[in-house]
Amino acid sequence: MDDNRQIRDLIEGWALAVARGDLAGVLEGHGEDIVMFDVPPPYEGVRGLAAYRDTWPPFFEWQATGAVFEIESLEVTAGAEVAFALALLRCGTDKEFADNPANRLRLTLGLCRREGRWVVTHEHHSFPELDHAGG
Amino acid sequence: MDDNRQIRDLIEGWALAVARGDLAGVLEGHGEDIVMFDVPPPYEGVRGLAAYRDTWPPFFEWQATGAVFEIESLEVTAGAEVAFALALLRCGTDKEFADNPANRLRLTLGLCRREGRWVVTHEHHSFPELDHAGG
Repeated sequence: MDDNRQIRDLIEGWALAVARGDLAGVLEGHGEDIVMFDVPPPYEGVRGLAAYRDTWPPFFEWQATGAVFEIESLEVTAGAEVAFALALLRCGTDKEFADNPANRLRLTLGLCRREGRWVVTHEHHSFPELDHAGG
Repeated sequence: MDDNRQIRDLIEGWALAVARGDLAGVLEGHGEDIVMFDVPPPYEGVRGLAAYRDTWPPFFEWQATGAVFEIESLEVTAGAEVAFALALLRCGTDKEFADNPANRLRLTLGLCRREGRWVVTHEHHSFPELDHAGG
């Protein structure tokens, strides 16, 4: 299996684990040194696998109110030892999509190959700001 | 010069070009196929160097009202052909930092080596959402 396929499988498996609220599945293939820039604060990101893990239970609670979490598009750029990927996801409730059909979560991942396996060491999740003055 | 140093120089040079409103300097080392997830919409990102270029004049207008754009921290993960980098930047006006000293722009970049030179093919810029329900 080539690198691109391995990475796609890892990311697609992760998104399915998120959607079913499977914390162990979400953590699989993630590095101890992961840095996540998440949708909520803190600005400086969440550092380390324990802190990353702690962000998911509140998300799952919100998701259980009726939100979907589905990859819509995924583009992987892989070298021999380092890769990155970008994705757009449907992440929200029916009401949010009714109010704003264009709504998508933007996701960027950074990956490293360690002991022969691809590992996610960075995630950046965001929604654009509809009313931002600069930046 | 090693890859890590070349990539740091490229990103630091880009940030200085942004800060001085130097459009040619901002575009340097960026690929024709760049995809940017920007702070403002569209959700699906800005695709191609021409569309990327068009985002900067409105930003420079806002920046000229008194905003800074400075890298505070930068971490590079480089393979032989693919790399990614994450950074925190001070991006805002004195008033914004007075209201919210923690405010930082989060930046992730994806890079590829092409014809021996590192080229930025992805940028993801975001601020966290202070009042987001999910995501």
